[in-house]
Amino acid sequence: MDKKTVGLSDAFKGNMTPKSFSKNPIKGTKFTIAISSAKGGVGKSTFAMNFALALKSTGSKVGILDADIYGPSLPKMMSIKNKPESKDGKSLVPIEQYGIQCMSIGFLVDEETPMIWRGPMVTSAIKTFTEKVLWNNLDFIIVDMPPGTGDTQLTFAQQIKVDGAIIISTPQEIALADVKRGIRMFDKLKVPILGLVDNMSFFETDNGRKYNIFGEDGVEKIAKNYNKEFLGKIPIDIDLRVAADSGKPLVEKESDHKISKLFIEFAKKIKKNYF
Amino acid sequence: MDKKTVGLSDAFKGNMTPKSFSKNPIKGTKFTIAISSAKGGVGKSTFAMNFALALKSTGSKVGILDADIYGPSLPKMMSIKNKPESKDGKSLVPIEQYGIQCMSIGFLVDEETPMIWRGPMVTSAIKTFTEKVLWNNLDFIIVDMPPGTGDTQLTFAQQIKVDGAIIISTPQEIALADVKRGIRMFDKLKVPILGLVDNMSFFETDNGRKYNIFGEDGVEKIAKNYNKEFLGKIPIDIDLRVAADSGKPLVEKESDHKISKLFIEFAKKIKKNYF
Repeated sequence: MDKKTVGLSDAFKGNMTPKSFSKNPIKGTKFTIAISSAKGGVGKSTFAMNFALALKSTGSKVGILDADIYGPSLPKMMSIKNKPESKDGKSLVPIEQYGIQCMSIGFLVDEETPMIWRGPMVTSAIKTFTEKVLWNNLDFIIVDMPPGTGDTQLTFAQQIKVDGAIIISTPQEIALADVKRGIRMFDKLKVPILGLVDNMSFFETDNGRKYNIFGEDGVEKIAKNYNKEFLGKIPIDIDLRVAADSGKPLVEKESDHKISKLFIEFAKKIKKNYF
Repeated sequence: MDKKTVGLSDAFKGNMTPKSFSKNPIKGTKFTIAISSAKGGVGKSTFAMNFALALKSTGSKVGILDADIYGPSLPKMMSIKNKPESKDGKSLVPIEQYGIQCMSIGFLVDEETPMIWRGPMVTSAIKTFTEKVLWNNLDFIIVDMPPGTGDTQLTFAQQIKVDGAIIISTPQEIALADVKRGIRMFDKLKVPILGLVDNMSFFETDNGRKYNIFGEDGVEKIAKNYNKEFLGKIPIDIDLRVAADSGKPLVEKESDHKISKLFIEFAKKIKKNYF
């Protein structure tokens, strides 16, 4: 029997190298920072909201674009229930909350409606959010990216001038495989990686015992291997989760909490190093 | 000024109600069970692998189809490094490991290569996996679904006879929003929901203190509200994570571990209730 093992066909491979495109900044904004993770559920949205608020607390004008069409978290995490206004039926006015300009697909449909959409519909929604939202004089727009390396990532990388990406991961092996793919994707798409964050790094009990629930130091090692900056660790923290669930992120709710201070440090570091 | 708030345009809405299609079982298999979560990072793949092995331990012939094109976990979790064989250059022979027939996009590319693909490419890969893989006389095929409600979910629901879906979630509020969307999606697409699982339900320290890191009882409440079966809770367990990271899922590695027993109970319950 003539056995042979197979890889990906040439047709599929041909599609794996993206072409280059002309890239524009999002109108009304100076710098675009993508918060990314390749893998879902690693705390990316919680990071994005708190990081945006931390940037605001350092004096910048900030917006958040929730680019996760299938799983928008912004409306709940930022306590926004109203629909955005449109003056001309085409453009959308972002909704301001806690001093941050916000936009999410979750503003346009009720919470429980799933967006059962194929890729081109997602691309079209992302274009609306980047071209038709009246972002007003922002220093930074924080983009909360969906997991994966698909339509949303491609649309941003090809059509938007993304000034940098921050990659969030938990330290377990199986998440790190996705981080490696994420780094390779941004490198391929020529989006600068500002740094990696080790999230849900460990859990500390009330009497100070630490448990490395998801493993240890994985993200830092990858940062070294790929020659990227390691921004730091964020422990699993019940206050952080409760604040996000309650609709007021910890940095806004309790700016002198030790975890809030971590976010403010990250924000200062990023501003000092890159902008 | 003429202000008005806006929802989704009619063009977008029109695309939200899927058409009906003729659905076929995956060739070579009797029953297809989708493991789904809408949200990523809730332990879906770990559940899928251990659940498949639990079904096997009850005497069934089982396969796993890793449908997560952007973040395949199967190769690492099941320790598979070789590429699949093809006898005719068109079909693919699944790779058997621990008595389970397996297929994943991760077999066809190296671990670090990101699949930077738009939706139609993903759909094409999913069609290859459901139509061109020589699954051999399986009782159950377990499909490890990607997060979201997009191309992969639509392709399965429209073209494959999916006998049931199990929805996995952690109990925190922000994940539950995604669970609600997931339930609504499967209901819309007419895929029966076999039950909901509360994963990473709590963390127990060495001296028996329990921490509800991600909240409490959220999944069970949603199951009740939506009149779906609640299958049970799985605690955060370091052995479970370490086994998955090491390439030998806990049910295979240590079948009498208390967590393995939970999976075997789930498998028995599902077989008894539905098949």
